Amino acid sequence: MVLHLGQIVEALGGELHGDPATPIARIASLESAQADAISFLSHPRYQQQLSVTQAACVIVAPAFREAAQARGACIVTEQPYVYFARLTRLWKQATRPQDPQRVHPSAVIHPQAEVHPSARIGALCVIERGARIGAETVLYSRITVGEDCVIGERCIVHPGVVIGADGFGFAPVDGRWEKIEQLGAVRIGDDVEVGANTCIDRGALGDTVISNGVKLDNLIQIGHNVRIGEHTAMAGNAGVAGSATIGAHCTVGGGAVVLGHLSLADHVHVSAASVVMRSLHKPGQYTGVFPLDENRQWEKNAATLKQLHSLRERIKALEATPKENH
Amino acid sequence: MVLHLGQIVEALGGELHGDPATPIARIASLESAQADAISFLSHPRYQQQLSVTQAACVIVAPAFREAAQARGACIVTEQPYVYFARLTRLWKQATRPQDPQRVHPSAVIHPQAEVHPSARIGALCVIERGARIGAETVLYSRITVGEDCVIGERCIVHPGVVIGADGFGFAPVDGRWEKIEQLGAVRIGDDVEVGANTCIDRGALGDTVISNGVKLDNLIQIGHNVRIGEHTAMAGNAGVAGSATIGAHCTVGGGAVVLGHLSLADHVHVSAASVVMRSLHKPGQYTGVFPLDENRQWEKNAATLKQLHSLRERIKALEATPKENH
Amino acid sequence: MVLHLGQIVEALGGELHGDPATPIARIASLESAQADAISFLSHPRYQQQLSVTQAACVIVAPAFREAAQARGACIVTEQPYVYFARLTRLWKQATRPQDPQRVHPSAVIHPQAEVHPSARIGALCVIERGARIGAETVLYSRITVGEDCVIGERCIVHPGVVIGADGFGFAPVDGRWEKIEQLGAVRIGDDVEVGANTCIDRGALGDTVISNGVKLDNLIQIGHNVRIGEHTAMAGNAGVAGSATIGAHCTVGGGAVVLGHLSLADHVHVSAASVVMRSLHKPGQYTGVFPLDENRQWEKNAATLKQLHSLRERIKALEATPKENH
Repeated sequence: MVLHLGQIVEALGGELHGDPATPIARIASLESAQADAISFLSHPRYQQQLSVTQAACVIVAPAFREAAQARGACIVTEQPYVYFARLTRLWKQATRPQDPQRVHPSAVIHPQAEVHPSARIGALCVIERGARIGAETVLYSRITVGEDCVIGERCIVHPGVVIGADGFGFAPVDGRWEKIEQLGAVRIGDDVEVGANTCIDRGALGDTVISNGVKLDNLIQIGHNVRIGEHTAMAGNAGVAGSATIGAHCTVGGGAVVLGHLSLADHVHVSAASVVMRSLHKPGQYTGVFPLDENRQWEKNAATLKQLHSLRERIKALEATPKENH
Repeated sequence: MVLHLGQIVEALGGELHGDPATPIARIASLESAQADAISFLSHPRYQQQLSVTQAACVIVAPAFREAAQARGACIVTEQPYVYFARLTRLWKQATRPQDPQRVHPSAVIHPQAEVHPSARIGALCVIERGARIGAETVLYSRITVGEDCVIGERCIVHPGVVIGADGFGFAPVDGRWEKIEQLGAVRIGDDVEVGANTCIDRGALGDTVISNGVKLDNLIQIGHNVRIGEHTAMAGNAGVAGSATIGAHCTVGGGAVVLGHLSLADHVHVSAASVVMRSLHKPGQYTGVFPLDENRQWEKNAATLKQLHSLRERIKALEATPKENH
Repeated sequence: MVLHLGQIVEALGGELHGDPATPIARIASLESAQADAISFLSHPRYQQQLSVTQAACVIVAPAFREAAQARGACIVTEQPYVYFARLTRLWKQATRPQDPQRVHPSAVIHPQAEVHPSARIGALCVIERGARIGAETVLYSRITVGEDCVIGERCIVHPGVVIGADGFGFAPVDGRWEKIEQLGAVRIGDDVEVGANTCIDRGALGDTVISNGVKLDNLIQIGHNVRIGEHTAMAGNAGVAGSATIGAHCTVGGGAVVLGHLSLADHVHVSAASVVMRSLHKPGQYTGVFPLDENRQWEKNAATLKQLHSLRERIKALEATPKENH
């Protein structure tokens, strides 16, 4: 598949310096690009790669116009990384045409579910009674959308996702657990993406809510009654326990855990593998990870860590040693 | 859907104070309840909400009878939270009637598998040769039950669960791994619930065993030969490595990890995201989590942590400074 | 099912001491073996169990020939654990014959996918356009192999696996996320095993690469553009973020996290639940886990940890106290 530079700027805009007839066979990083590729400079940090890249054309910000022209063709645009994102979408349309079939015949869709005619439902999905799938939403294969759960418009849901399994609710009775039926559902807004094998549980009494523009990576657990604010993104293997509320424009790193019933303000950023054990009312970056070390060093420090509190007491005692004794 | 208070106490017992004809349209928390809702006071901590809730009726313990009556209708019962749990089940029966179809026609069930006539098998499940599914057990959609694996009675298995994949067993040979076939199976007792996309591996030689009443949340990994005792509950994203034995009435928090070949006594409680690296022979609550902090603070403390052992040595040296020298 | 000792050594070699007609009904550990079982001594650490085991026959290394003969039948071989691994494979062939059907009729295979005639595709798998499945590879049930993804020969893929979902790539624009289409694929080598519900994302521009002989356990997340070297093994719930490169012959423990864009040398071993936050250029064992403690003790030490940096300053101050003052 080949696109010409002229076709690219016609579709996506930008200021082309170079021959519109130049054929482009792939998109590549500055480092790996060959003479058939278009590349992009997304951050000034990579600017030394600009002069050495083999790329046929480079997408750059205005500040790099001259440096880029000095080496060959370029497209100048205010936000090269966004331009690159749009180029990937153009590329995908050209190279991986969508199946004309909107609903795969192997999907199991309850007659009382509502699937918008423009939505796509992949092979072996299960859409249960009362579920609703919005316009232009794409469900890849092998997804379950449980009873009464709602997915908005232009969402993308990857294989293996489970939306609307029961939240984890039990009442302890005489050493056993009695099930609390989960009577709520899941409500997912517009432009949400949900990664492979991620699970979003239905609410206990009310609904679990995923707001517009949220992006969830793979293998994430979202407990019952959780609310995630607009445009928040969470990386793989993260978990949010029941009834936690996460604000808008937050990021949660891979493998991070947010405990139940907590509240995170907008613009809170949780580092990978960190555990949020209290509500966070101030925006900012938060971290809690034991630093990796060679195993022998770790063993020494980890063992000492168990005495940390008493070490503090010993420091206090040393500080208190009256100097007049000497 | 509406239930009247009279219908509720007829089904679930309890001492009703108020008009049996009062219609109830939903169950809600004290805080969010409107005049069409029934609510419950599960813990004295929430008692100040009792006087201000809008709920049509409140389920309370005998100690709160008078306070509850002072504000309107109430149901008095010894264990309000258990009563609430049972009410959710009554509610679900009334609002989400089960499909009359017990085995979905899209399920793939091996002719040599045994499914009890009262069990329910959802869409696109796979039940392999020799597997057995007990009475009144419900498998939601897209579940795999591998060869010879057994699930007891009244279990609930959520979508995407994989029971009986191979345990992770390999013999190292000349820098490669040779597969150790996993010849055991999985045995799951009665009244077990297994959350969405959770995996329970088959045993290497014997079986992996999940005892009666165990509750597993979503995305949990249970390795080969693991044994989990009765009425133990584990939260989402937790992992138990091969050949670990977890006692009865334990709880394991979300994202916690139990290493292989360890043994946990009954009534051990592992906090979320904690890592169990040694056997725990005494009941109790155990935790091991790096406390979350603002990233800058964390960086300082984490860097210092790598010197912790040497800091201890320095404290020792300070303590040993002979006073007679001064 | 019964195999005789003679059949075992005929198939697998080794030096049999004992009656070839001895019937063997199962394989068991030294500890649990009854008189109908064959067992093995894989490590000198377990040698005291040799004299007391009830096993009909024990597989041992030459160094234990006499001790083993003293108690009954034995098979002597250089690598008893590898012999055991091969015995499990012989056992599985004899006890769990493969279905004659190579491709389950419920599998959804795109006409432009290539499945080698000797490969096996289980129930309810989805193989998308352009995907290729190599010779003698086995896909269990409910697996998705996305467009253009390639799996080599003799691989084993367990239920629920998702190969080739989109990597997690978005460009931030005015507080929203714009999708970066993931134009690469996944390339999996030969002799790879992938555990249940594990996800391997397709690359953004190039491919995600899993090399020959890699073994991945269940519920693992492999981000886009990741490269994993030959014969590396990763345990359950682990996660590797985008564009990380892991060397050959590495091991990554359960629940461990490798952050994005890092590089791990060959023969790096990451302990369970540890977080790799920087590249590791030297082989070795690395760990970073907060040591588990009784909750009360943990609380004290964790609280003090937040003052660790200032404690160091206080130690420095104590050390600096000028002795000449005294």
